[in-house]
Amino acid sequence: MTDATTLACPVPASRYDRVVLGHGSGGTLSLSLLRDIFLAAFDDLALHRLEDAAVLGAPPPGARIAMTTDGFVVTPAVFPGGDIGVLAVAGTVNDLAVSGARPAYLTAAFVLEEGTPLELLRTVARSMAETARRAGVAIVAGDTKVVERGKGDGVFITTTGVGWVPEGRSLSSSAARPGDKVVVSGPLGDHGIAVLSVREDLGFDTELVSDVAPLTGLVEAALEACPTIRCMRDPTRGGLASALTELAEASDVGVVLDEAALPLRPAVRAACELLGLDPLYVACEGRFVAIVPEADAPRLLEALRRHELGRDAAIVGSVTELHAGRIALDCITGGKRWVLRLAGEQLPRIC
Amino acid sequence: MTDATTLACPVPASRYDRVVLGHGSGGTLSLSLLRDIFLAAFDDLALHRLEDAAVLGAPPPGARIAMTTDGFVVTPAVFPGGDIGVLAVAGTVNDLAVSGARPAYLTAAFVLEEGTPLELLRTVARSMAETARRAGVAIVAGDTKVVERGKGDGVFITTTGVGWVPEGRSLSSSAARPGDKVVVSGPLGDHGIAVLSVREDLGFDTELVSDVAPLTGLVEAALEACPTIRCMRDPTRGGLASALTELAEASDVGVVLDEAALPLRPAVRAACELLGLDPLYVACEGRFVAIVPEADAPRLLEALRRHELGRDAAIVGSVTELHAGRIALDCITGGKRWVLRLAGEQLPRIC
Repeated sequence: MTDATTLACPVPASRYDRVVLGHGSGGTLSLSLLRDIFLAAFDDLALHRLEDAAVLGAPPPGARIAMTTDGFVVTPAVFPGGDIGVLAVAGTVNDLAVSGARPAYLTAAFVLEEGTPLELLRTVARSMAETARRAGVAIVAGDTKVVERGKGDGVFITTTGVGWVPEGRSLSSSAARPGDKVVVSGPLGDHGIAVLSVREDLGFDTELVSDVAPLTGLVEAALEACPTIRCMRDPTRGGLASALTELAEASDVGVVLDEAALPLRPAVRAACELLGLDPLYVACEGRFVAIVPEADAPRLLEALRRHELGRDAAIVGSVTELHAGRIALDCITGGKRWVLRLAGEQLPRIC
Repeated sequence: MTDATTLACPVPASRYDRVVLGHGSGGTLSLSLLRDIFLAAFDDLALHRLEDAAVLGAPPPGARIAMTTDGFVVTPAVFPGGDIGVLAVAGTVNDLAVSGARPAYLTAAFVLEEGTPLELLRTVARSMAETARRAGVAIVAGDTKVVERGKGDGVFITTTGVGWVPEGRSLSSSAARPGDKVVVSGPLGDHGIAVLSVREDLGFDTELVSDVAPLTGLVEAALEACPTIRCMRDPTRGGLASALTELAEASDVGVVLDEAALPLRPAVRAACELLGLDPLYVACEGRFVAIVPEADAPRLLEALRRHELGRDAAIVGSVTELHAGRIALDCITGGKRWVLRLAGEQLPRIC
């Protein structure tokens, strides 16, 4: 018997230091990439079985399933305080958490551009594994595709998460009521400004790091202290303004924000002034905004501030029956202005 | 109150005929794209609620959860017999089905290149919705990101699927035993050759169409007729050779294929000869290969042939205790040759 069409020996990915098209073939090179980089970082047994689908445990009795997906195309892939791997895990975990779900399983699909350094992939895979451990979620399945140079941009990652919503818990973006308070879990805009600070074409320095972090623990602490929370969102792309507009529209209420109460780091404030950005639209990746009955707001604030990720939590506004679906800002200077959904793009490829 | 930083009116996506960066902003333009294209095609209620995560029903009692993810970067996005939308739904549904799971929920994340025609997205979204209906799966969550021109390539889609594995059903790639038969559900290589036939730089014509299709019904029929099936795989990227190598390695057995028994359409055979391709490595997207105890193979074959998608099913080989982890081919010409896993890439971006 002769070997007519193929190479006989598996080729370790380590013979290469950059992604080649063959790494996307489904053959020996794909397997090497999978083993040397992804399986070396991710330790879930279901993943290591390498079946076409991971077969997993069912939810606890009475729980419903929550499911969400997000693509990540941030540039640059490594930024102060994190990288696209941390972001891809935290982003999806946080979408589950703010929906009231306990994250259980995560999948990760990679689209790699030919020529991407394998060392970058190693860094990203390690970040994903570490963030998944922090969040208490298992990475159970994955996929890798390779596109030609100039048909992608380094690493794109899509993560999808499944979590359990415990029996009796029900958060809904349509549940906000006039009189409720608006609470944010920490300073706004750190992620967006940290990423901008290292974009090549913007020459400003800051010591700011991204707030990217999995919110599983903080959200559970919040819901335990304050089970009356109406709804939560993580103000990522589009910032606090977009997140609140979605809640206001779904609940058919208005929101009034108090500019003086918004937690903003001096570096974010300065960068926004320099670049002409409104911090209300700048992305966070480790914060949430919650709507809570007025009487319970102080208790929620206290619970958040006891947690490492919630130390700078603040009550920043309230819900009103006026101007349904719209957000108004009580300005420090005394006036009021509308805070509308952005039409176009303030900061492309921030997540 | 004045509108300081934003446009007041929502801008319908239909004002544009191509994707612009603002469509990825999380603002009004993103929402228009979502409404005009994706929500217009997908009708699941959980999706239309637009929460950060979809909250869904739990699996039936006793069932386990199966989960899988796949990225799709096929070029061109529209090919004879399908498009990237059909492929993205069928590909993930089929990974669930061959794992013994009944597909339940699907998520879809899009990475769009600036300048991509919106009309292409409409076509793709309609294909996804129709394929999901055929497969009996609900598209429950999604995401859209936009990258600059030259940093992507039209449309990339990542789909993730969740399904239920009924109580008592257990397929495993490590379950093949010497003496078992290898059954394929239909002709090999149609998808790969159909896509190749329309690649700009390859000037050959064929009437061949891709076999892309959701296999939910065919797999259920197979498992009902033949519950003793050891394991199944869909021979996509890397073709039958790679799928069988994975099964042979996991089960620590060898496989002998009978070249004369392989179902190949004349157009695929001719194209492979013309281009110097081995059809054993060419992707299918609507076929599966099953390993089944010898005594049950005829019953499985009969059940498959009764189904529209399985009319050309065939027994193509058997499992042996010899050459564990390797596939051998009994050639029509009389000799034998090894069929090894490809090292690199035969056909890039076929799925």
